[in-house]
Amino acid sequence: MSSHIASAANGMAVEPIRVVYHFDEAASAAKGLRNIRNHLNADPTTHIVVVANGGGIDFMLVDQLDPSGEPYELAILDLQQRGVKFVACNNTLLGRGIAPERLVQDVSIVQAGVEEVGRLQFRLGYAYIKP
Amino acid sequence: MSSHIASAANGMAVEPIRVVYHFDEAASAAKGLRNIRNHLNADPTTHIVVVANGGGIDFMLVDQLDPSGEPYELAILDLQQRGVKFVACNNTLLGRGIAPERLVQDVSIVQAGVEEVGRLQFRLGYAYIKP
Amino acid sequence: MSSHIASAANGMAVEPIRVVYHFDEAASAAKGLRNIRNHLNADPTTHIVVVANGGGIDFMLVDQLDPSGEPYELAILDLQQRGVKFVACNNTLLGRGIAPERLVQDVSIVQAGVEEVGRLQFRLGYAYIKP
Repeated sequence: MSSHIASAANGMAVEPIRVVYHFDEAASAAKGLRNIRNHLNADPTTHIVVVANGGGIDFMLVDQLDPSGEPYELAILDLQQRGVKFVACNNTLLGRGIAPERLVQDVSIVQAGVEEVGRLQFRLGYAYIKP
Repeated sequence: MSSHIASAANGMAVEPIRVVYHFDEAASAAKGLRNIRNHLNADPTTHIVVVANGGGIDFMLVDQLDPSGEPYELAILDLQQRGVKFVACNNTLLGRGIAPERLVQDVSIVQAGVEEVGRLQFRLGYAYIKP
Repeated sequence: MSSHIASAANGMAVEPIRVVYHFDEAASAAKGLRNIRNHLNADPTTHIVVVANGGGIDFMLVDQLDPSGEPYELAILDLQQRGVKFVACNNTLLGRGIAPERLVQDVSIVQAGVEEVGRLQFRLGYAYIKP
């Protein structure tokens, strides 16, 4: 991470923080989305990618409701407006027989969610948060 | 992480390892504190910061007991003596109506716990552990 | 992570991605192993280390069965053939009175699993995934 520190010390523009949120169970989705809203409120420049696999993708499907009865889709669209990217695991879609058309708009798909989580950290220096 | 490796190879003092522990549920607090004691026993030079949000802050409140009936405060004070920093999420305090005075001494407060977890990793190279 | 990006940009061989999987509860072992198979199918060059502590080591003991009734040992041996390393926490072995001989072959032992998880990230740049 030395390059980030160096650029700040040199007075150059500070690179925005990058964070990957790993969602892998349905029960943690509402908590994770609340975490992300708080995260962006504290630092609106943060680049956030949500990678979901297993039960973690449920909230990305249209017509799903959060524990308060609100559509998750509204929360996703709102966070997309704030720059958050949402990524679903294709192994999960295939394994659970979920048609990609059921995903909320602009949710992208990768072959394996965990591989994307590793790649974002290792190649692009993303921090990791598991809600 | 190349700078850390390089400094070791050059024979300079090796930088102590930095780790952020992310506590976000009450049920994992006793496990997490045991993890940290084992961590410091294996490498006493490790710099550890515990960032708690959601149910993860419960153990940081005075008068809370662990599953064995021991006050969590004693465990916190002991670990603070060994250099561990404890940080609570202000969004959690506000959202749950918890007065900051209820926190054990020397627990610091940040606006958003998750933002601090991302910042410590991305800006300062901390490793991440979720108990 | 700047060194990895630079080497790719210079046309040098791209360094394989390194990821540590942290297993700390018995209930997540089958999910974690499935994650790792998907991970390697998406990128067979990935260097993966599984570090287990607490209940996370149960699947590493001989004669343990997964929820489908298959021996975990077969899954471990298969993944070892694909380059995955398995590491158990000695504090857990001692605390739970488990003889090291009960571990599946070629599972190595470290003093504290969490210390190894921190070390792999901080010193060697491993990404982190908690199944």
